[in-house]
Amino acid sequence: MGAIMNNDEQEIRQLVSIWAEATKQGDIQTVLSLMTDDVVFLVPGHPPMIGKDAFEADFNAQELSGDVKPQFEGTSEIQEIKVFNGWAFMWTRLKVVITPSDGGPPIIRAGHTLSILRKQAGRWALARDANMLAPAKQ
Amino acid sequence: MGAIMNNDEQEIRQLVSIWAEATKQGDIQTVLSLMTDDVVFLVPGHPPMIGKDAFEADFNAQELSGDVKPQFEGTSEIQEIKVFNGWAFMWTRLKVVITPSDGGPPIIRAGHTLSILRKQAGRWALARDANMLAPAKQ
Repeated sequence: MGAIMNNDEQEIRQLVSIWAEATKQGDIQTVLSLMTDDVVFLVPGHPPMIGKDAFEADFNAQELSGDVKPQFEGTSEIQEIKVFNGWAFMWTRLKVVITPSDGGPPIIRAGHTLSILRKQAGRWALARDANMLAPAKQ
Repeated sequence: MGAIMNNDEQEIRQLVSIWAEATKQGDIQTVLSLMTDDVVFLVPGHPPMIGKDAFEADFNAQELSGDVKPQFEGTSEIQEIKVFNGWAFMWTRLKVVITPSDGGPPIIRAGHTLSILRKQAGRWALARDANMLAPAKQ
């Protein structure tokens, strides 16, 4: 049982790494492959974003605007992962550096996330995500 | 199994009701009884508050300041509860009306929460809480 738990934890840590790298590369298909169809993203001051389709539509709307997109570089420090039978929760401390495409100074957002993950067909995926990032100094 | 799940869900809904009522009454002992010793509260723009003792110390510091405390009245709409074996997660839409003791206009904060709950000695308790409330209009 201990070994199984460790494998799940490692797989979840891998998901976090792959997510960060794919986001940096603008690789939307990889990011989408790491979430459940019914994923829910919660942030302060906005209505929930519900569903993988909503995430993709939001990304595509940015594409169609024709603007050069800013670059996102995230650094996660995982504070806690707790695995149940096919579900898990994760608490991370996250810092995201957003580099505007117009050459302006980078914007830094930092804070904590609390996420629910689900194992589907043997692979972990993000199911619910609470993002409490706020503007931060360098 | 279905019945057990329903009982757990009902107990978690009761916890939410009791928490809101105790907070309104300023009944700190009841609120403390509804959280685990190692509870973690996450909010945007602040470091995590870790442990029941930290919650109580924060409350007592307000008491000692001698100020008349504002009244907190919260309304939760539970969006989702998912129960595992002894653990659960809950997503709520929450509105809190804060009435200052100086007679100033009420402050409204609204948004979503994502929480992890744990069943200990047969009773549900809050273990991790992500609070994404932001200033809102009446």
